[in-house]
Amino acid sequence: MTIDTEPALSASFTEALEKFRAAIGAEHVATDLPTRQEFADPYSPLEWTDYVPPAVLQPASTEEVQAIVRIANEHGVELWVNSQGRNNGYGGSAPRNPGAIVVNLRRMNRILEVNEEFSYVVVEPGVSFNELYDYLQKHGHRLWADCPDIGWGSVIGNALEHGFGYTVNGDRANSVCGMQVVLPDGELLRTGMGAMTDNPSWHLSKRGFGPMVDSLFMQSNYGIVTQAGIWCMPQPETYLTGWVTIEDDEHLPALLDAVRPLMIDRTIPNYPSVFTASGALAVVGKRRDFYDGEGPIPFEVSKAIVAQIPNLGMWNMRFALYGRENTVDAQFENIKEALSVVPGITVTGTKMRGDALDVSALDQSGKVQAGIPDMEMLNTSDWVGGAKGGHIGFSTVLPLTGRDGRRIIDLVRPASEEAGFDYIGGFLLRERSMMHVTLMVYDTADEPAAARARDLCGDLVTTTAKLGYGEYRCHPSNMDTVAGTFDYNDHAMLRFYERLKDAVDPNGILAAGKQGIWPQRLRQTR
Amino acid sequence: MTIDTEPALSASFTEALEKFRAAIGAEHVATDLPTRQEFADPYSPLEWTDYVPPAVLQPASTEEVQAIVRIANEHGVELWVNSQGRNNGYGGSAPRNPGAIVVNLRRMNRILEVNEEFSYVVVEPGVSFNELYDYLQKHGHRLWADCPDIGWGSVIGNALEHGFGYTVNGDRANSVCGMQVVLPDGELLRTGMGAMTDNPSWHLSKRGFGPMVDSLFMQSNYGIVTQAGIWCMPQPETYLTGWVTIEDDEHLPALLDAVRPLMIDRTIPNYPSVFTASGALAVVGKRRDFYDGEGPIPFEVSKAIVAQIPNLGMWNMRFALYGRENTVDAQFENIKEALSVVPGITVTGTKMRGDALDVSALDQSGKVQAGIPDMEMLNTSDWVGGAKGGHIGFSTVLPLTGRDGRRIIDLVRPASEEAGFDYIGGFLLRERSMMHVTLMVYDTADEPAAARARDLCGDLVTTTAKLGYGEYRCHPSNMDTVAGTFDYNDHAMLRFYERLKDAVDPNGILAAGKQGIWPQRLRQTR
Repeated sequence: MTIDTEPALSASFTEALEKFRAAIGAEHVATDLPTRQEFADPYSPLEWTDYVPPAVLQPASTEEVQAIVRIANEHGVELWVNSQGRNNGYGGSAPRNPGAIVVNLRRMNRILEVNEEFSYVVVEPGVSFNELYDYLQKHGHRLWADCPDIGWGSVIGNALEHGFGYTVNGDRANSVCGMQVVLPDGELLRTGMGAMTDNPSWHLSKRGFGPMVDSLFMQSNYGIVTQAGIWCMPQPETYLTGWVTIEDDEHLPALLDAVRPLMIDRTIPNYPSVFTASGALAVVGKRRDFYDGEGPIPFEVSKAIVAQIPNLGMWNMRFALYGRENTVDAQFENIKEALSVVPGITVTGTKMRGDALDVSALDQSGKVQAGIPDMEMLNTSDWVGGAKGGHIGFSTVLPLTGRDGRRIIDLVRPASEEAGFDYIGGFLLRERSMMHVTLMVYDTADEPAAARARDLCGDLVTTTAKLGYGEYRCHPSNMDTVAGTFDYNDHAMLRFYERLKDAVDPNGILAAGKQGIWPQRLRQTR
Repeated sequence: MTIDTEPALSASFTEALEKFRAAIGAEHVATDLPTRQEFADPYSPLEWTDYVPPAVLQPASTEEVQAIVRIANEHGVELWVNSQGRNNGYGGSAPRNPGAIVVNLRRMNRILEVNEEFSYVVVEPGVSFNELYDYLQKHGHRLWADCPDIGWGSVIGNALEHGFGYTVNGDRANSVCGMQVVLPDGELLRTGMGAMTDNPSWHLSKRGFGPMVDSLFMQSNYGIVTQAGIWCMPQPETYLTGWVTIEDDEHLPALLDAVRPLMIDRTIPNYPSVFTASGALAVVGKRRDFYDGEGPIPFEVSKAIVAQIPNLGMWNMRFALYGRENTVDAQFENIKEALSVVPGITVTGTKMRGDALDVSALDQSGKVQAGIPDMEMLNTSDWVGGAKGGHIGFSTVLPLTGRDGRRIIDLVRPASEEAGFDYIGGFLLRERSMMHVTLMVYDTADEPAAARARDLCGDLVTTTAKLGYGEYRCHPSNMDTVAGTFDYNDHAMLRFYERLKDAVDPNGILAAGKQGIWPQRLRQTR
């Protein structure tokens, strides 16, 4: 493949670019190759140009976003919108459809309100988790905002993509309360109680009068969210970060089954993660620090490595408790008792006062479960070493049971190893379900490895669907494949999505193909 | 007014009725006046025919619902669908638009699944709270399903109307997980993970791939939900039902402000209610038992009545705790400490083992907070006595603060009393907001009183909107008025609702005017 350094632009496209420059300032309309590559899939080998956009726009306000969509409608150009565009394991900023202009909202980075009385913030989509955390710290706010493992992403963007975090507000889509949205025709909408001018409950009560439409603007191409309320936690009196290890892989199912009742009744109030030793090791080191053989690290070698490292099991789980010290102590006691049925388990906890966290004494889990973002986990992409690390994420939704956990591992681990990848996997636990997340890590300079990773993800979509499991999110290259697995009643859901798409975006200018939803003019007959 | 005993039916309408009879059985297509009146507004005086439907259909299956909507599209007849149709304070089964045929789903009353491993049930819309409770009891299931104060309503229907209950799953719309929906054109949709055939996470994980559309089928006219998963609580080891009284009306704001932090951090994990002495009295007695004067009970008389009744304050709050005994005890201790700042407050609790509830020792609050429905609160409608009690509900969403609580009472209480009604009000508390609910109770044989109640509700919509507050739900007679108060950006939300309506129901056969959403052919220019 050759790099498309100067895309052939139609007259209408060129004219649209001129109007974009007039609307948001020429300096915020980029067509140079380095910028275009920056907003392509960052984990694609440089030779691959399938997700390099022809231009990048960076508006600074809701009004500029409205101007952009109006121009796009006039000229029939396609837009692909993201907030930070940093979810690199799922393609970063890369547009699904070649030719779509990237609209990146990093410049819309205002923190519009911090409300301690009601524990929420209102932010624009360019605000990152890091920025929000720093702001709350700097101003001494007693609020903990949920954050992911890697703090550079957008607070709003991640919630819109159904991202999960690790505090009590870890179900981020469910922690959004009250949005402002630019529709594909430029119309401005406020959702929930915000649909009434100056209603004081906009960010307090999720529903207005009539159907709640907020979720329509998540994982979709129906509108551009330009601000939203995000519920946070009040700083608790006491914080406990818990750590669980099990010695043997074979007891993972017992752990998952023992945790389920604690999740359903919220004895564990946050969203815990369960991960392999390799997942923990990849945060703090590189593969070669532990093993220098060819091919995936053999299972027995993993066991030997784990045996030498204190506080590390073949599987590890983190969880957290928050509140008055008496309730935290009681919950911790109940959790230890409930988990004691799992063979070879250890359960430990580090307890601190919420108003006097010793951050230096917290490990990565202790930090993110207190809403303290960092960038440490970005190391994972460099696990295999090489010129520039990359990975693709593969994420499957499962019932929270040991049986389902075992099934997915027995499918994904051998498939990964067969394709030459160490199995770096884990489970993000929710009330009744879990997400199995696995990363295929490669050096982006190693084109065959990158190709194997992408192919593996595609294959796994199909094989997991045969077991009845679906993905919650994916790389653009897999969106149609995943959408295709949601097949009930001849893909009734996708056909419903398409009907909504045609109603809200008749010209099909916004994020064509996102989540497999194409506008009428680009739709293939199934 | 005269009763429309024999509505003039068009030829197409008559033909449609014939087809309905063929599709669902002639005995389930009623056009007789008693049945039509049964499915009209039950709290309208008999002389009022504005909400009497021309016919009532009662299908027994999803397939029959599909057949009905297809016939309606063919013949251009309008349908108004409800599940039980028993929310009498909001018009019961009554269609918003005269001429719409009522489709009532009481015959679809199967409990399709009870899952103790994951604490959920799957039900059809005809299943009432009473029936679900009885079923769980009869089969010894250790599951507590959320219920409202009056148990005859539909589990699904109430959730779809954004109803609130009193257990940890009291945010009922948020406790729905996975729906089956008949679209207005007869197409069958399964939402979330159910969009993939046989996905085991359909009722475990709320989102699928792409935007979540479940909330579109709540408080809307976009589809007919024919089954849904409903999350329940596992039976807790320990249950505590809490009761709070305050002596003086003036300290209500202090109570609301003291409760707020306990709601935000979920020290109180359920959805408490705060209500007036009159609200409590109306459950157990009639007005004449306490006062026989004309006009609203004077404030000083209320105070004297309250002073004579043990465990009753001018304001009262119920709440509940669930879990292991050690956590329940710790939470209760923290709640008592936090509320002790309110002057003249008492906080008591009754603790029981979850597997050995002594139901006879529980008052109405103790029951509903454990998911035990009854019909006692129906007494409220007979507060004023007379031939047949009735009421209209008026429900406003507010920030959970003492200031906002005081403001709404100072508006609604004098307005109610001026119109001749005792103020029977209360607050349903949520994490950050509350609903102020008030009932205008009258004798339905007293036409002027009924008219005053309806007018008062309409007036209050406008006056509360001037303070920036919106209603969450209302009687059909007020739907357009309430929708009109959601006015941001020239009613952008309503215009968006209309756009969706035209896309999913182009012929406008389903529930025209519900929540102010009209199909194109009936839309008035604003």
